[in-house]
Amino acid sequence: MAGANAAVTDATRSAETLEWLADRARANRCSVTRIPFAEMDAWSFQPGTGNLVHDSGRFFAVEGIRVDDDNGPRATQPILNQPEIGILGLLTQKAGGVRRYLVQAKMEPGNVNTMQLAPTVQATRSNYMRVHGGRSTVYLEHFRGSGRGRPLVDVLQSEQGSWFLRKRNRNMVVETAGDVPDHEDFRWMTRDEIHELLSVDNLAGMDIRTVLSCLPAERPRTAPYDEFTEALRRSYDRAAPARCTPAEILSWFTEARSRCDWRVTSIPLRDVPSWTVGADEVAEEGGRRFRITGRRVVAERREVTSWAQPLLEPLSIGLAAFLARPIDGVLHVLVRARPQAGLPDLVEIGPTVQTQADEPDPADPLAAEARTENPGRVRFDTVLSEEGGRFFHARTRYRLIDVGRDFPLDVPPDHCWLTVRQLMDLVRHKHYLNVEARTLLACTHSL
Amino acid sequence: MAGANAAVTDATRSAETLEWLADRARANRCSVTRIPFAEMDAWSFQPGTGNLVHDSGRFFAVEGIRVDDDNGPRATQPILNQPEIGILGLLTQKAGGVRRYLVQAKMEPGNVNTMQLAPTVQATRSNYMRVHGGRSTVYLEHFRGSGRGRPLVDVLQSEQGSWFLRKRNRNMVVETAGDVPDHEDFRWMTRDEIHELLSVDNLAGMDIRTVLSCLPAERPRTAPYDEFTEALRRSYDRAAPARCTPAEILSWFTEARSRCDWRVTSIPLRDVPSWTVGADEVAEEGGRRFRITGRRVVAERREVTSWAQPLLEPLSIGLAAFLARPIDGVLHVLVRARPQAGLPDLVEIGPTVQTQADEPDPADPLAAEARTENPGRVRFDTVLSEEGGRFFHARTRYRLIDVGRDFPLDVPPDHCWLTVRQLMDLVRHKHYLNVEARTLLACTHSL
Repeated sequence: MAGANAAVTDATRSAETLEWLADRARANRCSVTRIPFAEMDAWSFQPGTGNLVHDSGRFFAVEGIRVDDDNGPRATQPILNQPEIGILGLLTQKAGGVRRYLVQAKMEPGNVNTMQLAPTVQATRSNYMRVHGGRSTVYLEHFRGSGRGRPLVDVLQSEQGSWFLRKRNRNMVVETAGDVPDHEDFRWMTRDEIHELLSVDNLAGMDIRTVLSCLPAERPRTAPYDEFTEALRRSYDRAAPARCTPAEILSWFTEARSRCDWRVTSIPLRDVPSWTVGADEVAEEGGRRFRITGRRVVAERREVTSWAQPLLEPLSIGLAAFLARPIDGVLHVLVRARPQAGLPDLVEIGPTVQTQADEPDPADPLAAEARTENPGRVRFDTVLSEEGGRFFHARTRYRLIDVGRDFPLDVPPDHCWLTVRQLMDLVRHKHYLNVEARTLLACTHSL
Repeated sequence: MAGANAAVTDATRSAETLEWLADRARANRCSVTRIPFAEMDAWSFQPGTGNLVHDSGRFFAVEGIRVDDDNGPRATQPILNQPEIGILGLLTQKAGGVRRYLVQAKMEPGNVNTMQLAPTVQATRSNYMRVHGGRSTVYLEHFRGSGRGRPLVDVLQSEQGSWFLRKRNRNMVVETAGDVPDHEDFRWMTRDEIHELLSVDNLAGMDIRTVLSCLPAERPRTAPYDEFTEALRRSYDRAAPARCTPAEILSWFTEARSRCDWRVTSIPLRDVPSWTVGADEVAEEGGRRFRITGRRVVAERREVTSWAQPLLEPLSIGLAAFLARPIDGVLHVLVRARPQAGLPDLVEIGPTVQTQADEPDPADPLAAEARTENPGRVRFDTVLSEEGGRFFHARTRYRLIDVGRDFPLDVPPDHCWLTVRQLMDLVRHKHYLNVEARTLLACTHSL
């Protein structure tokens, strides 16, 4: 019963991790207060454009975009513009035959519970160039410059295409052979330990999820025990039969990208129709998507101990779901190539269903499946937080739904059935999987 | 002596192909005349910006760009803006155990010799949506819609990053099982026959070279006969030892991309400093790079039989070279990750040396090697034409230089040694190899 013992050990370790996190939360106490824009030191609305910008011209700005297609104007919205490429880096080391990863307990002002699991390093370029004049980023030397470790993963990946304009970060997993000094806010964990914690609501932050998703996995976390988990296990096998060849998948993706005729243009925030800038929020008239608000943060143990910043505040909890079924005994997930105005190349591969709306979209026949409450079909179902450094209480319900082997294989042209191994082969390269699909891939490894 | 017989057959077939091309040139006679901008029907300088645009708002426009980096303004230049994704498609079929490709004899107004080898289909979106109101594109049905063949290659690739703003095309190789009617401007050729013709000056056009480069090859064209060609043959073998692992190559590329802090902004053509718009050219004061001129074209057998258009006219012949050497008996080529302002993501992998200048750059220690006249070192050396639909007499000297096994392996951080197989693995995905490196990869298959 090695499997059962391992599970007990994982559970014990999980409890310890949760205690450690609670302890770090007490030690790293911070306060986050909503303030009017006028009180946000170093931030102001730029004359002319009305864009909300930082005095340094760095970090990020709240601006507008307009989307046109071949038929004319299509949409406008405010968006966060952060053109710099940051680093999301996870340090790893093998000791006594066991590989572990250095996980951080990190406070972000927008987190619902303040403290979440983060990768070893999570730094914008402005951060690590120390534009803010604060302390240097701990462990950064393993990811940059001559002391850099051996890269296992190093790839640019996009972030939320409906909230960020062409934002991407460098997702890195780096192995070091040298001594790594301890730090009370950091903890070495095995991959299985981290994956076990992915099923705890609002615990593993977006940044550790995306980095983990880029790291190939040999198998899901638990041993197979039924038809679905047998098929899942085989879905990691490169030799298992797949519905599409790699050439067919790349062609399907290229076709979807070529079909999109959107053109995205930056416009002044003040020119975004039906959005108004008030004293303490940028909000859409009758809108149900998001608003922009200001916060003051006091956090004694951060690089900078006190600051103010705008945050994007979604008005509901999002939903991102993979529908999955065995095909010839191999689990395939249904993905959808969808355009999002803020993505660097507009089209990436996303979940089967991805929405910020409270209600299923009647135009999407798969939306109701994604919301099923049939417990036999729901294989993963956890509410997880999006980046708390830019978003306020942004949460998404991530679900993996077993639709069974009678589910129709014929799907609309922007959809495709992929094995887990095929997803892993794509995520090694930039800009194939969007951030929601990457989180779902990491969640799949947790099963 | 099957090899020698095959070579003789290839040479005979080459002679036939050249005759066929000459014949097609006679049948498709066309005239290209330089005209002042004022005589270019349907083209005009837009009030306000001074951009040179087509009345339909489609095809392409001559505009300006400004490049800034963290230290401020860096450069400005005119550039061709063609945001649409076109199709470069090569049709293939296996008959009697032999695979052949349907190659086109195509006239382009900017070609030095008018008629060159092109893929089966070469069409901008405006072309195949018939914005010009002309004839439909022959064989297009194999690449679009329900009658599409089986895709062997289907990938977005960028084009000249110093002349085009974010231009890319869909590079496709599609297999059809059905009947393909003959057409006098098209000819079925084996891959070896096409590769043999790559060493003829200005014969195989840019579009067929880029499509061919995306199609994996099992081996170079000729059998090994010396240390270099032995090492070349092994460089196609997936199992051969390589200097870098795939993870290291991706990390090197991501690092190079992250290092580039350029920001590219569109500006009005009239705001590009030191460039002036005259009656018949847009030219740089004392410039040695390129100018924009107008041409009238009369070509009875094209989709449209007569039109006028601007063309970008380089003022010298470019140079693009791979330096190559065996490492542990496996040929490696030295590539360089270089930013170019017009590339969709700024940085792609290019040749060791790539320049439009007449003289070697004294700051580049490899530039002199790339110009060697030692015949024992020069393995490939052909002047080939760039896209004649947009550029006038644009030619690049493509060279593969054998630098020998004593050449230093330590190279600057933006350089990397890759095997031919590793280049082929990268070119399956969008935006890794720039168009010059892709031509050199196709040339390598021709050796």
